[in-house]
Amino acid sequence: MTSETYPVDATNRVKRRHDRGRYDHATVHALLDAAALCHVAYVVDGQPYCTPTLFWREGTHLYWHGSSASRMLRNQSDGQPACLTVTHLDSLVLARCGFNHSADYRSVMAFGRARLVEEPGETARALTMMVDRFFPGRTATLRPSTGQEIKATAVVVMEIERASAKIRAKGVADDEEDYALPIYAERLPMRTLIGAPEPCPRLAGDVARPENLAAYREGRALEDALADAYRTAYP
Amino acid sequence: MTSETYPVDATNRVKRRHDRGRYDHATVHALLDAAALCHVAYVVDGQPYCTPTLFWREGTHLYWHGSSASRMLRNQSDGQPACLTVTHLDSLVLARCGFNHSADYRSVMAFGRARLVEEPGETARALTMMVDRFFPGRTATLRPSTGQEIKATAVVVMEIERASAKIRAKGVADDEEDYALPIYAERLPMRTLIGAPEPCPRLAGDVARPENLAAYREGRALEDALADAYRTAYP
Repeated sequence: MTSETYPVDATNRVKRRHDRGRYDHATVHALLDAAALCHVAYVVDGQPYCTPTLFWREGTHLYWHGSSASRMLRNQSDGQPACLTVTHLDSLVLARCGFNHSADYRSVMAFGRARLVEEPGETARALTMMVDRFFPGRTATLRPSTGQEIKATAVVVMEIERASAKIRAKGVADDEEDYALPIYAERLPMRTLIGAPEPCPRLAGDVARPENLAAYREGRALEDALADAYRTAYP
Repeated sequence: MTSETYPVDATNRVKRRHDRGRYDHATVHALLDAAALCHVAYVVDGQPYCTPTLFWREGTHLYWHGSSASRMLRNQSDGQPACLTVTHLDSLVLARCGFNHSADYRSVMAFGRARLVEEPGETARALTMMVDRFFPGRTATLRPSTGQEIKATAVVVMEIERASAKIRAKGVADDEEDYALPIYAERLPMRTLIGAPEPCPRLAGDVARPENLAAYREGRALEDALADAYRTAYP
């Protein structure tokens, strides 16, 4: 844990419901590390794009990847401003009036300038962590990457210059005078769960599921498995 | 179902893995209607923002909301270019080499110009559907909105000018010569499930859960409940 905090300015200050805003590294990083999927906003010729992608964090840097042919990378290689957002939707909230209908959620918006990773050593390390951050130790068990594969994979890095976390976790919150009304209200929770792993039907001989995948087991919350894997990959 | 298709140009053409791209209304709309959460990309002074929000569709229009104080709305009210994206993450894919690690997913990127809804009748209808799209018929059972609440709620609308869906649903796909290697590979499925509904602890008297919430039951996939609710709300 750290007591460090991301700087706050007009870009990342949580304005609406500012009581829900958090800027400390511990909160921001924990929400990022519990996710595999993010959405990245970037701009090309004035047109915003919102692209879903897998990502991971290393210190105050965020990494994601794609083909060097991709629109996003072609335009971010020189350090384009970007915003990477992660959202955990925890519930839908049914209140006693339309206005108080809401959702519980935990989200992070991270701002910085995205650039293509170009230093060969940094690329090689990033390609390893792209797998090992999710499945610690896995790269060492795989068929090594070919030069062509490495060349075809582009890695983007963005230092987090500013970030904010926003959390709502209070369920139903009605106006005091509305609680007496004969209206049904509830919190409808939801969670992303891991299903039964589906081994490749073409596994060779007696290849078994490795022990280091134990964090990913049926019925477990994906975010818990991801957070565990993160702690193993970056102890 | 419809055979209509969104126009394709440089903005929305799926370039990387173009075989995964779809542009027909039926595919695009079904993926949107199975989601409650989206991420919207927009630009303020050259800085991209990626904001998570609840949203819904009406024909070829997308709606989302927020306080009139919000950064996003203040800057999109005059018709700002935006991109609204929905992603269903279906699996993580563990392959026999780093390069073939992947994920199964179904995503939609919708492009258009977002503007504030200002016509009073349109606002009133949008405020009803903001609740009833998720919980059909619910608004009629609620304490009516006050003038102040309506004033404090801003609704944004964006006509979908271009859109693309991108779908990967093939699990492990290794290079042919790698299947013989003694390396474990699997598809790790995941799904967002509804938990046990949590009635408000302050329910008045003998208020029961209404029948019209039956689509939202414990253990069901959230996307299935949302799609059902959508079909009831917009038959």
